Amino acid sequence: MSAIHHPRHLSTSISSSTSAFLGQNNFNTRTQSVPLPVRNNGSCKCVATPSAEKTAYTTKVSRNANMAKLQAGYLFPEVARRKAAHILKYPDAEVISLGIGDTTEPIPEVITSAMAKRSNALSTVEGYSGYGAEQGEKVCLILFYKNSCQNPLLYRHVDSSSRSVQPLRAAIATAFYGHLGIEEDDIFVSDGAKSDISRLQVLFGSGVTMAVQDPSYPAYVDSSVIMGQTKQFQKDIEKYANIEYMSCTPENGFFPDLSKVSRTDIIFFCSPNNPTGSAASREQLTRLVQFAKDNGSIIVYDSAYALYISDDNPRSIFEIPGAKEVAIETSSFSKYAGFTGVRLGWTVVPKQLLYSDGFPVAKDFNRIVCTCFNGASNIAQSGALACVSPDGLKAIHEVIGFYKENADIIMDTFNSLGFNVYGGKNAPYVWVHFPGRSSWDVFSEILEKTHVVTTPGSGFGPGGEGFVRVSAFCHRSNVLEACRRFKQLYK
Amino acid sequence: MSAIHHPRHLSTSISSSTSAFLGQNNFNTRTQSVPLPVRNNGSCKCVATPSAEKTAYTTKVSRNANMAKLQAGYLFPEVARRKAAHILKYPDAEVISLGIGDTTEPIPEVITSAMAKRSNALSTVEGYSGYGAEQGEKVCLILFYKNSCQNPLLYRHVDSSSRSVQPLRAAIATAFYGHLGIEEDDIFVSDGAKSDISRLQVLFGSGVTMAVQDPSYPAYVDSSVIMGQTKQFQKDIEKYANIEYMSCTPENGFFPDLSKVSRTDIIFFCSPNNPTGSAASREQLTRLVQFAKDNGSIIVYDSAYALYISDDNPRSIFEIPGAKEVAIETSSFSKYAGFTGVRLGWTVVPKQLLYSDGFPVAKDFNRIVCTCFNGASNIAQSGALACVSPDGLKAIHEVIGFYKENADIIMDTFNSLGFNVYGGKNAPYVWVHFPGRSSWDVFSEILEKTHVVTTPGSGFGPGGEGFVRVSAFCHRSNVLEACRRFKQLYK
Repeated sequence: MSAIHHPRHLSTSISSSTSAFLGQNNFNTRTQSVPLPVRNNGSCKCVATPSAEKTAYTTKVSRNANMAKLQAGYLFPEVARRKAAHILKYPDAEVISLGIGDTTEPIPEVITSAMAKRSNALSTVEGYSGYGAEQGEKVCLILFYKNSCQNPLLYRHVDSSSRSVQPLRAAIATAFYGHLGIEEDDIFVSDGAKSDISRLQVLFGSGVTMAVQDPSYPAYVDSSVIMGQTKQFQKDIEKYANIEYMSCTPENGFFPDLSKVSRTDIIFFCSPNNPTGSAASREQLTRLVQFAKDNGSIIVYDSAYALYISDDNPRSIFEIPGAKEVAIETSSFSKYAGFTGVRLGWTVVPKQLLYSDGFPVAKDFNRIVCTCFNGASNIAQSGALACVSPDGLKAIHEVIGFYKENADIIMDTFNSLGFNVYGGKNAPYVWVHFPGRSSWDVFSEILEKTHVVTTPGSGFGPGGEGFVRVSAFCHRSNVLEACRRFKQLYK
Repeated sequence: MSAIHHPRHLSTSISSSTSAFLGQNNFNTRTQSVPLPVRNNGSCKCVATPSAEKTAYTTKVSRNANMAKLQAGYLFPEVARRKAAHILKYPDAEVISLGIGDTTEPIPEVITSAMAKRSNALSTVEGYSGYGAEQGEKVCLILFYKNSCQNPLLYRHVDSSSRSVQPLRAAIATAFYGHLGIEEDDIFVSDGAKSDISRLQVLFGSGVTMAVQDPSYPAYVDSSVIMGQTKQFQKDIEKYANIEYMSCTPENGFFPDLSKVSRTDIIFFCSPNNPTGSAASREQLTRLVQFAKDNGSIIVYDSAYALYISDDNPRSIFEIPGAKEVAIETSSFSKYAGFTGVRLGWTVVPKQLLYSDGFPVAKDFNRIVCTCFNGASNIAQSGALACVSPDGLKAIHEVIGFYKENADIIMDTFNSLGFNVYGGKNAPYVWVHFPGRSSWDVFSEILEKTHVVTTPGSGFGPGGEGFVRVSAFCHRSNVLEACRRFKQLYK
């Protein structure tokens, strides 16, 4: 999505054309269209309030009680809904989005050209491929067995001196974990970290207890609620019962006081953190791994922003000795290569990670991946292979560098206005403190007076109350314009 | 995968290169590689038997008991494992795969070119897009709001006389359900029907009861086991307790005797059926819908093979009056456009489908899609839009016609050999009866003596025992060669 929006409409089909099912000679897909206001888009349906309209007939199937526990909509569709309502209210306003953290810069050509070539190859006998392995496409040794080779484009980045070619699983293991002892078969390629988080919840089942940083990316808690790991939402403290919220505040440097954290089976931990933007230090992560080991817990480590780290903080939990016995890591090309729409991520489940009965977690996760998933798009996998090629990694770091400059501009702006500002240095998110104020009030004030969309901190958990997250994912001109408006509002 | 395989090896990285995380100037991804036998590929890890090797440390997290209920591996990786073992045993054999039902023919150029163009566009400011709506990409009215338009390629197939453009949700509603009253917002675009089946299981939760055709596509039962809807596997009858198996045999025309079926919350029903290849008639589906209505059940109707129907049997459950109040339909471009690797499907959840408390099922499914999924690849969505363009639909029907000719050849072969053969006419699968024999024995006999991979019927449920499924997804030359070998073996 471009960062500046003009009012737009949706169209809905009121079609009298025959279906493609009815005879194979009628392919008419023309429709008449009726414009509808944008608020009718999918996102507002995310609000899980009981439906007004009723029909005569209802099934006898009971609604999943866990779904009913969920509060309102998933955060980002709710932000999108309020943005859409604002656009309707101010049709001429130039709305700038520093909200949902969607990437805005084009994908480097070295990567898109690999995807275009793979797309075109799929129309050829030599280049066509169907189901890949669910865990990631397989390797062929073209030099040995030309005839068995399906996807010549898989090998685009392999230098000619190499005796073999790398499939994506091995390429990711090498590029991101080369020195850490993570192997090809520890890597599970997927359509993104968000999907993997919920597949991990299905893996763990409803019987586990979990801890999350507070504040944190809402998908951890919401997927836990959906799986039935929690009890009801407690409105007074804005927390779900049976989830351990690990408070992350300026006072504790956004790293939880582990002496106050109760033992849970699963610990979700995101570093650099979304939304606070803070990256945990090697010493802190060493304590986290020891804490997990002492409790026999499994850490699910979200490293989706790891390449944004400027200093020498760890990029992977597996940089911490012993982590392979206690941690899973999930990551993604979304915020590295602008793959938010292309969809390609991965999860690392080391074979050393064992359940209490000694059964390898990876074997069950592999079964989940084989049964509930059918592999990431082969075109996206070719793009990911290009991402981890030498040229691709170089291009990725340039895009990341651009967003980090945006973050600097946003931090400088709020610093100059006297705010306490956190994050930004090792992450594309700036975490601005508005002490004593409601996050949604500040969100609305900023939107109303500057037409800039941010994200209310309280949407990431009660620990985010009083903060607003400002995203650095934006065109430069819009970041500068947004900051100009911030200075007018808060000067 | 091509239908003929020569022995191949996997490579594993033993890399001393530094990680991309360690400083941004080192992008070395060269590796040494050591060949490993193909049996070490991902698929054999699908077999969920306790791990032999143990290490000193285990976590205190209990293995999900539902995962432990699963029997052996998911069927198709198991077939792939036996095929790989056969290739190792007979390195010079020309193995032909009529097994896992993977498409083999190139994707029509009209579709791949749309994906290539979308890929290239992602490297431009105008053509770039990030997160789409989770339910499917949004529409822009380019004629009205050029500036707000992100993806010019979305509009490729819209004829110039149209005042507006169709997003994929509306295009699918029009192309496949144009006359059935299914609307844009009833369609949820996804990465494939297999993923949607497990998202539907997460939606329903562990508290529901379910029925399946016996035999049927294993993902229905396995995902139900994983979600905890079933009790243990009963080895004596080869069924999971708490699942209603609806027997589908030659005697009942592969349509269950509903008078013998107990009431369940959910009824999975696939037509044309995988593996039997039989399509239910309008009269049969009318009885099924009435049965669901009488019981207050929800039908999950899998129409992934609907376009293979040659006669006037329904292509969609929504052709049956009243179905919108009792049915969900899931489908995919995998077997239509060869998208098994591209990954693009959809699920229809009509707004008329209500839980017992009147709450719309679609609202909860939308929440699942927003929380556990992040949308299908934008490149694959552009391909799907091309699929439902007039030229795309024409090309799709040509590919389907080719596979149906394969099915005719396979049917004729087994008929000429005196076998009772089912399916094939309305599906890409031929269901061959070997009365009194074990499916796995027949599978092994055919593989050992003809080097042709099939799928054992018992892998689809106890009702499949004594049958073998032969897939029509294969290059023509290989189908002819396989049939020549069948005639030698069974003459």
